[in-house]
Amino acid sequence: MRIEEGSFVLIVGDGVRSVIRVSRGSKISTIRGVVNADEIIGLEYGSVVRTNLGYELTVLRPMITDILLERGERITQVIYPKDAAQIIVTAGIGPGSRVGEAGVGSGFMTALLAYYVRPNGKVYGYDKREDAIRIARKNLELLGLLEWVELRVGDVVNEGFMERDLDAVILDMGDPWNAIPNATEALRPDGTLVIYVPTVNQVLKVLGALRDGGYVDVRMVDVMVREWKTEPNEVRPQTWINAHTGYLILSRKSARSVKLTK
Amino acid sequence: MRIEEGSFVLIVGDGVRSVIRVSRGSKISTIRGVVNADEIIGLEYGSVVRTNLGYELTVLRPMITDILLERGERITQVIYPKDAAQIIVTAGIGPGSRVGEAGVGSGFMTALLAYYVRPNGKVYGYDKREDAIRIARKNLELLGLLEWVELRVGDVVNEGFMERDLDAVILDMGDPWNAIPNATEALRPDGTLVIYVPTVNQVLKVLGALRDGGYVDVRMVDVMVREWKTEPNEVRPQTWINAHTGYLILSRKSARSVKLTK
Amino acid sequence: MRIEEGSFVLIVGDGVRSVIRVSRGSKISTIRGVVNADEIIGLEYGSVVRTNLGYELTVLRPMITDILLERGERITQVIYPKDAAQIIVTAGIGPGSRVGEAGVGSGFMTALLAYYVRPNGKVYGYDKREDAIRIARKNLELLGLLEWVELRVGDVVNEGFMERDLDAVILDMGDPWNAIPNATEALRPDGTLVIYVPTVNQVLKVLGALRDGGYVDVRMVDVMVREWKTEPNEVRPQTWINAHTGYLILSRKSARSVKLTK
Amino acid sequence: MRIEEGSFVLIVGDGVRSVIRVSRGSKISTIRGVVNADEIIGLEYGSVVRTNLGYELTVLRPMITDILLERGERITQVIYPKDAAQIIVTAGIGPGSRVGEAGVGSGFMTALLAYYVRPNGKVYGYDKREDAIRIARKNLELLGLLEWVELRVGDVVNEGFMERDLDAVILDMGDPWNAIPNATEALRPDGTLVIYVPTVNQVLKVLGALRDGGYVDVRMVDVMVREWKTEPNEVRPQTWINAHTGYLILSRKSARSVKLTK
Repeated sequence: MRIEEGSFVLIVGDGVRSVIRVSRGSKISTIRGVVNADEIIGLEYGSVVRTNLGYELTVLRPMITDILLERGERITQVIYPKDAAQIIVTAGIGPGSRVGEAGVGSGFMTALLAYYVRPNGKVYGYDKREDAIRIARKNLELLGLLEWVELRVGDVVNEGFMERDLDAVILDMGDPWNAIPNATEALRPDGTLVIYVPTVNQVLKVLGALRDGGYVDVRMVDVMVREWKTEPNEVRPQTWINAHTGYLILSRKSARSVKLTK
Repeated sequence: MRIEEGSFVLIVGDGVRSVIRVSRGSKISTIRGVVNADEIIGLEYGSVVRTNLGYELTVLRPMITDILLERGERITQVIYPKDAAQIIVTAGIGPGSRVGEAGVGSGFMTALLAYYVRPNGKVYGYDKREDAIRIARKNLELLGLLEWVELRVGDVVNEGFMERDLDAVILDMGDPWNAIPNATEALRPDGTLVIYVPTVNQVLKVLGALRDGGYVDVRMVDVMVREWKTEPNEVRPQTWINAHTGYLILSRKSARSVKLTK
Repeated sequence: MRIEEGSFVLIVGDGVRSVIRVSRGSKISTIRGVVNADEIIGLEYGSVVRTNLGYELTVLRPMITDILLERGERITQVIYPKDAAQIIVTAGIGPGSRVGEAGVGSGFMTALLAYYVRPNGKVYGYDKREDAIRIARKNLELLGLLEWVELRVGDVVNEGFMERDLDAVILDMGDPWNAIPNATEALRPDGTLVIYVPTVNQVLKVLGALRDGGYVDVRMVDVMVREWKTEPNEVRPQTWINAHTGYLILSRKSARSVKLTK
Repeated sequence: MRIEEGSFVLIVGDGVRSVIRVSRGSKISTIRGVVNADEIIGLEYGSVVRTNLGYELTVLRPMITDILLERGERITQVIYPKDAAQIIVTAGIGPGSRVGEAGVGSGFMTALLAYYVRPNGKVYGYDKREDAIRIARKNLELLGLLEWVELRVGDVVNEGFMERDLDAVILDMGDPWNAIPNATEALRPDGTLVIYVPTVNQVLKVLGALRDGGYVDVRMVDVMVREWKTEPNEVRPQTWINAHTGYLILSRKSARSVKLTK
């Protein structure tokens, strides 16, 4: 597969790691020198190019997480890939899943969900803020994933979700406990509710609300991913890591939740 | 969606958490008493049933990870879901991906990969041991995922992979460094090589071999997922956790790897 | 230094690690065979002895933490050495410190404190339960540390501490927030209050009470110590670890606390 | 106890946390405004003072770790308090212990050791670099701990330690495996050898050398201390932490080590 005008590329080597959108005639600047975009266009992915300072860099197809982390426009804190990965796999979200999400924020989690529900699933993303929805749409278009997402400006606490029988609902908002009754209405009878909160104060409120809402199989985890230095002569964990993002709380709706909601 | 004869169900409540295959006329025993399978057949998922001891349990559709962890037959140590989740998302493995895997072991990782490459991708799973391939096939059939997998008895160190242009190759074996040249041949020009090893002795050999093999963007992580008690009045991390499974090493093939292999 | 009748020894080697009190005429059984105590008496610490099965074991002077963990009689959960170490060093508890402690439990933390405040400091240990004080006394005698401890049967919530101007007070009890006013009275004007609780429910109550009590420099940590396999050919973290014991909350009394208490 | 001219104080409150040496006539600047040193002299520790901007700060006696971390002059990476605490308690270093240390670096670990071996123990600190010994001496004087330390410019790999029968030797240097034979000579027959290294490459060399050197009871840990936000309404772990400093390897000399050294 060859690099085309307009493609995203991930350029790596000698301390360089950045995602660039290739546009004809432009220059790509790195800490190891400059590469002309025109030299890259038409190359096969995986090719090695030389900067004007003589360093060799490799041009790769970026993963969706690379693009999101390096190029996505952000307006809010995002669910980190390490947490998103756990949510997606533990909740069994995959090809064909129908997933609700509030709030969408910059659309990072939305994009990953869209990537994994393809080609026959759908993500329904809500946010109260019009600017969030606008930026999320832009990010999803950038990634070619808008086809699998319905974005809606809306307040799930007061207005609820328009969908029914969803496989999973993900709540990434300050007061998720207030959205639980409407999430219950939107979920399939044994659907999965995923809640992501950063503080233990919120955790206590969520766990109480889940019990009161008839949810079962309540599980909570925090995920720590430690990155390592990989230079063969000096292998060790990185000194500084992001050691806390949020708590992931997964639970399942039951027949009891339905009664309680009505 | 209603529970049918032969379906897997996840039964939860009051300390019970188990995956059962429902068969007409059988009794389901739990630490909270017995439920007749016949009472469950025909119910909607999410329904609450009462055991002969009066406890209320909820019957859910299990996730693929639930079935694998509770019901899959094992012959080897498996890649844990927490690690599998990081591998899948970080390597961008999703619908349509073509992935090689060696060794397959009991087929747990194979099953998760198959789940995520559906409906148009494929997993090519190798293992030297015939019994591993036999059990993996059984586990994949159990999960209805065999359609997306080609299983092969074979030694990737000495015989290599039959496929070419794979998006990713995952090596879960004792001496993965010996399989790198053949993995390089099987990968697309900028394909992702994922190596999973438990000891730092192995890590040092792998990192040396990746450097010598022209691989770039070498990243290594270890993943710690801490489970919590979720009883609202006593919220705390579980005392004992599985704190180490293996190191995940991800890297990308480059044009330089191709030359070195030939 | 030579091993005498009645001494504690730590016997290690080939998977053996146990603390034994040497008594003339007895036999010491290990998973690697039997050693006669009489052969050990009179040897220098560090000597190698041979079991009846031919294995070589080494006889060492045990550390205080070895004796506590292997030989101490327990009636309650203990503060683990990993947490005790952080408390002692962060709170600056050392030779000459005067420290209050409630509850004493089996006296493990008390023993470590006594070890570190020697030879001119003192530990004042309270517990409501007479049997706890009795067992703690026994454990402290066993270790030869009773000289630096005053043990008292007493309820610090309702009756308070008899001491004043203590450098530090350590609360290891279910409802430490109720003991804060009396701890404030017992501490020196800028003394250190250390609270150890396992759940986040308790954490929230403690943090609120410290703020209301005029405490400053409130710091909280949780400590994770990962043990490794050290066989040179297979170096890796142990699979299962005790990943949560409790939260350590350290804070300092201020002039404001004094006013609030009166 | 009252604050005197020349004392160290720890000033805390409203985001301020700093260690200051009080000198008459000077002004103490903080992010919450200025306090005159003269207002502080003569106050009791724990007193509350008001800055020129109206904020209330509390003046405390700092712990030794506070002074080291905030005021000590550094020339090298230091052993962190979290690791030092584990070393001290696990190795049973306390009042009366005689401890060797190489290299001393800025003297941080030396200072903590000196604090804990008081009043009748001693620390013997070696470093090849004269400037390290000079700065360590300055830091130890600052803390009033020089009395319990002998500092020596010297190369323990080539020249060894001058002491014999030490309870513990701590090696904090790039190539500790080369210093093991001389550490063995300096230790008591069952003395404790503590080695602190940041990379797994070094770990493998150390573990091999300890086995070859007849050391027993080899244990290795890594310590993670997670700090939390303690604002009662927003309790959560800090986002960024120092997740890796070094590996702590503790082992015991045995009679076999003696033979191997000779």
